[in-house]
Amino acid sequence: MTVKKANQQEQLKTPYHLFLGCGDNPLAIKTSRGIAEWNPDVCLAEIAGGDSPLTLGLPKMSVKEAAQNGAKTFVIGLANAGGFVDPEWEPYILEAIESGMDIASGLHRRLDEIPSIKEAAEKHGVTLHDIRHGYTDLKTGKGNKRTGKRILAVGTDCSVGKMYTTLAIEREMKAQGYNATFRATGQTGVMIVSSGICIDAVIADFISGGIEELCPDNTPDHWDVIEGQGSLYNPAFAGVSLGLLHGSQPDIIILCHEAGREHIKDLAHIPIPDLADCIELNLKHARLTNPDATLGGISLNCRNLSAEEGERQRAALQAKFNVPCFDPMITGVKAFVDQL
Amino acid sequence: MTVKKANQQEQLKTPYHLFLGCGDNPLAIKTSRGIAEWNPDVCLAEIAGGDSPLTLGLPKMSVKEAAQNGAKTFVIGLANAGGFVDPEWEPYILEAIESGMDIASGLHRRLDEIPSIKEAAEKHGVTLHDIRHGYTDLKTGKGNKRTGKRILAVGTDCSVGKMYTTLAIEREMKAQGYNATFRATGQTGVMIVSSGICIDAVIADFISGGIEELCPDNTPDHWDVIEGQGSLYNPAFAGVSLGLLHGSQPDIIILCHEAGREHIKDLAHIPIPDLADCIELNLKHARLTNPDATLGGISLNCRNLSAEEGERQRAALQAKFNVPCFDPMITGVKAFVDQL
Repeated sequence: MTVKKANQQEQLKTPYHLFLGCGDNPLAIKTSRGIAEWNPDVCLAEIAGGDSPLTLGLPKMSVKEAAQNGAKTFVIGLANAGGFVDPEWEPYILEAIESGMDIASGLHRRLDEIPSIKEAAEKHGVTLHDIRHGYTDLKTGKGNKRTGKRILAVGTDCSVGKMYTTLAIEREMKAQGYNATFRATGQTGVMIVSSGICIDAVIADFISGGIEELCPDNTPDHWDVIEGQGSLYNPAFAGVSLGLLHGSQPDIIILCHEAGREHIKDLAHIPIPDLADCIELNLKHARLTNPDATLGGISLNCRNLSAEEGERQRAALQAKFNVPCFDPMITGVKAFVDQL
Repeated sequence: MTVKKANQQEQLKTPYHLFLGCGDNPLAIKTSRGIAEWNPDVCLAEIAGGDSPLTLGLPKMSVKEAAQNGAKTFVIGLANAGGFVDPEWEPYILEAIESGMDIASGLHRRLDEIPSIKEAAEKHGVTLHDIRHGYTDLKTGKGNKRTGKRILAVGTDCSVGKMYTTLAIEREMKAQGYNATFRATGQTGVMIVSSGICIDAVIADFISGGIEELCPDNTPDHWDVIEGQGSLYNPAFAGVSLGLLHGSQPDIIILCHEAGREHIKDLAHIPIPDLADCIELNLKHARLTNPDATLGGISLNCRNLSAEEGERQRAALQAKFNVPCFDPMITGVKAFVDQL
């Protein structure tokens, strides 16, 4: 049921009908918000179930209306504790299937575990995209140098702004006339650009090989802008980060960091690394597959700082590491792209 | 069909009936040879199909004879190009199922993809152990310090002798009265000790978490002797190696290296790392989850050296790094265990 393209990338049909669930917690719809913010063109409409007050400000449509207006994929762009399909969501999903839409989900549990959903999808000939599952035909990494250029976001930790940084860089590069492609490696990124590989969901043997398929040989003027994941210093996910680094063989890494964070997310006993150490270690590993890898910028997430303090810290890092330091949400990423 | 224990480890029933396939290539039965060499007590008998001349020197029994003599698991202890169940093997597997044996396979393709095997297993109530598949309920790593002591083999590359080194260390430690357990992380290791986790076959998010489950809190006098995988310098598998390192939180690492190897296996463009660099990088990462990690020895695979040259190189490394340097196949590992 779970279908990937021959090269193992997801390929979601657009436009989307975004499902916001039946709750009232705005944090739960982070994925949908990311899609609406970064790729509004693919968002036909939204729907919140039950009495939910949640909205992204998109047109509100029933499932039937959305299907009649051309929606191709019903996107479960939200998370819950446990990562399962809430029984409250099921009628909406079934109606979408009956209306001919594919379903896309980034939940931990598979859509096709639910017999009613599986049967309906088979009956109506629609595809269930379980973005965190089904990468079964990848190859192991080879480490051969590929043509084209690559930028990778690396981090001091998870959830510091790697996806926003790379999406912003792709947008700015395109605005400046570069031939650039954002390469999604996480579920929100995949849903935003409707393609990519959720790299923490592949079998461990195929992390770097999966990334090699995600950003293959390209024209010499082409830039892959690759979403990073995790951190070499996060003991839960460092293996993913290292495979991603080797598979990306980046010409340029961008270090992403959240100002003020003191320990690794959810692991209070593991401190955030020193930035110089983190840069050096990432470059050391990157040079295994690209001896020319260099640091190109620092993306400092300043959401917890005052405007003045943010400016002061960015200036200090820029002076210390001699690369542009920016916050994509505050300063934009022009300073980085201008110096490419 | 693929069953793991609650803690996600394999648990194979013994004794085994070892199936050597129908070919004539002794390299193909490396897994079976490892089992017969390291754990002869669980090997009731062997069987080669067709006209195969292969043998491990075990008693030869037909499937029926083995079952009558108490064999509990029919082990497909061999590999072929493509990693699939050869149609020539199918009659033997089906006979084993009909005789009430479980089936264990380390092939890339699943046993239960073959309808006749799946149906027979269901009908006769036996378990299909696909050792490279089905680790679906692991947790992410936490990096909390666990009680008990841990030794991990790390390497300059794949296939340099990490499994042999750790099996030999466990054996020597037990002989000296230590409370030690070999922890298998690859398919041959799992089959040898009939338990463990094939760590390159788990979902990437769960590499370190899987290892945390494999060697949990233990008594202060207990040593886990953990089989390593891959190398931080092998761009195909380094993610697995790093997750394994973080999850193991080793007190002691043993560096495993094959004398004379010049480039990473199957990747002629990636050189073998400098040993001092490899030790330093492994210790740096290991100290994220165990600040006290140290180098305890160097296992030098000298199979391509003359006796004199092997002795010379081991002495040189021992002098340079100030830890015992040994070849488990030539010198044994007593020098390492003696200094614990």
